[in-house]
Formats: sequence, C-alpha cells, structure tokens
Amino acid sequence: MFILSSPSGAGKTTIARRILAEDGQIRLSVSYTTRPMRPGEVHGRDYFFVDADEFNSKVEAGEFLEWAEVFGHLYGTPKAEIKAGLKAGHDYLFDIDWQGTQQLYQRMEVDVVRVFLLPPSIEELQRRLASRGTDSTQVVADRMARARSEISHWDGYDYVVVNDDINACFDKVTGILNSERMRRARQTGLVDFVRELMR
Amino acid sequence: MFILSSPSGAGKTTIARRILAEDGQIRLSVSYTTRPMRPGEVHGRDYFFVDADEFNSKVEAGEFLEWAEVFGHLYGTPKAEIKAGLKAGHDYLFDIDWQGTQQLYQRMEVDVVRVFLLPPSIEELQRRLASRGTDSTQVVADRMARARSEISHWDGYDYVVVNDDINACFDKVTGILNSERMRRARQTGLVDFVRELMR
Repeated sequence: MFILSSPSGAGKTTIARRILAEDGQIRLSVSYTTRPMRPGEVHGRDYFFVDADEFNSKVEAGEFLEWAEVFGHLYGTPKAEIKAGLKAGHDYLFDIDWQGTQQLYQRMEVDVVRVFLLPPSIEELQRRLASRGTDSTQVVADRMARARSEISHWDGYDYVVVNDDINACFDKVTGILNSERMRRARQTGLVDFVRELMR
Repeated sequence: MFILSSPSGAGKTTIARRILAEDGQIRLSVSYTTRPMRPGEVHGRDYFFVDADEFNSKVEAGEFLEWAEVFGHLYGTPKAEIKAGLKAGHDYLFDIDWQGTQQLYQRMEVDVVRVFLLPPSIEELQRRLASRGTDSTQVVADRMARARSEISHWDGYDYVVVNDDINACFDKVTGILNSERMRRARQTGLVDFVRELMR
C-alpha cells in the first residue's frame, strides 16, 4: 500500500492521478461512504454508498482498515478487498491525510510505504491556496491553518518529497514506488527464482 | 553506505563503476591492505598500503568497519574516515561480498542500504564466467561454485535486482539509491525546512 499525503496545495492529487494513469500495477481502493451519491458517480466504482447504520456496523465488525469523518460524512477503507488485492499482486494508492495514515500504519496488518509531499515554500503554498478562485480571506486563512496542521505530521512518513516542480516530483514519487517494489521481502517470486539459479 | 554485492559475473563491477562515474555525491572508501602495491597504484588513492603488523594493530584497535582476507592478503575498511565522510554528507559505495556486508550491517554504527544483483539465469552466469578467456574447465567450475555460494546469501539484502540488461539494471540500482536518499530520516535539512514552512 502506497500512501501519499500532503497539505492541500502541495500537489498530491495531481501526482496521485498521474501515477494511476501511468502505472499499470497500482489502483485506488473503493471506499465506503455515507455521503450522498453525486451525479455521474457509480456505486462500486467511485464509492460504495451506504447509510450510517450499515457503516457503523462495519466499523464495529472491524471491516475497515481506516475510517474517518470528513465534513459530517463517514469514509472507510474496506479491509477484505485490499487484502485480497494485495495477495493477487496489486498495489494500492492511498491519497489520505495523516490521521488515516496513522490508522493504516498502526494496524500493521498490511505492508505500507508512506510518502509525504511538501510545498517548496510557505509563500508558494499561500499562492496556490489563494488562487483557487474568489475565496474570501477567511477561507484562505482556514486553509492555511489546516495545511500547517497537516505539515506538522511530516515526521510520521517514510519518505518526504518537496514538490517544487510537478514533473520532477512525479519522477521522485514513482522512483520511490518502483524502488520499494524491488525490496527483497516484496518480490514474491524470488525464492523460486533463486532455487532455480542454485540448482 | 550503499552496498552492492553479487556473484562474480552478475555485473556488479560494471554497475559500481558507472554509479561512481555518474553520481556526484557517492564515492568509494579507500581501504587498507597488506597486498603489495602494483605499478600505477597510489598510496592513499587506491589503497593505504600497510604491513601485516600495522594492519593487525588496527584490527585490534577496532579501527575497521569490516575486514577480510582474500587470496592471502588482508583488506579493511577504515571506520573514522567513513564516519567523517558520511557526516559531511557524502555517500559511500561498497562493492563487497556477503561476509563484508554482514560485518558492516551487524556493526549498526552506520546507515546501510544493501543491494544484491542476480544473474538472469544459471546458463547466462555460466556463459559470462566461461567467456573470460582461456580458463580451464576446473577454473570455471570453481568460479561457478563460488558464485552459487555467494547467491545463497541473497536473503541478507534489502533489495534484489536481476541483471538481465545492464542499462535497465543500472537504472534500477540508481533508482534505489536516489529513493533511499529521500527517506525522511536521511534528509538532514528537513527539520529546518519544515520549521520555516510552519513559521
């Protein structure tokens, strides 16, 4: 499981989309949510849309690797699907915040690589958060406060990448992804390969 | 410290030379040896040439990170120089066998990444070891036995890369090197950078 976190405005969503588009082995997990379905969304593709009762019974049954409430709606990552997918050789990309990362990591049931993206400077972050349109000063200030709070958790990650250029940042993040795939413990076919070499 | 090991014939020396030529941040450590100086070699550049007494007193004083006897001569990696170099921000490449790797790793005084190269097949390894000239069948058989013994230690490494194409293998190994440099714990400037972001 490849976790990508960053404060809003550090480019996480752009990087995540490009990885999903260009890497054939990695996929998003489909989360459960109590949020209402939006036009164009498909149940089972974008989310599994459930009501609060069903969501909470899954929480109690321990069926989520992590879950969180965001703006009054519940979101959860299903454990069984991910475990089956990992076993089948797929990687999963998670575009989540520090709290979700902590939950996933502390479970220790799954193999996790955690990458944190940082903006190149506070001025650049401010510029990116302010240039999203016609938001009020207060909205921008709130975003900056949330970004600072997210940044404060940078030390809970395995890798830290400063995003001062989106292409360079993409190369670095995919470099980490491909490098981590070469870890001995993750190459499931190695034992047989070496046995063949030694025969 | 970036350790590259492989059985003879798996391309380690080619990869190591190319990394040293193309990566500005990594260097070889200069070892101590009791082997006689060869024409063209320079004391302090190729090796520190010492006699057995001086070598052994350094062993006893704990001045080597690892040392070994190869074909009757002693070779040792000096601890103080490496530690000072690492502190100054240099990386060190080690082209050593599994025994040297174990010694370096077990000391735990230094930060080590261990990469093992494998040949694509036993037939290819045999071909590479036999094509070194006019060696007798016995010499080739001895080399194969040594290669098998080295391969048997593949599980003592962090990463395993199969070298079926020298350019692809080089890209993979430098990918691991650059990725490991992005580990949070190795980026010494991050604490100050984040403090500046959060100000």
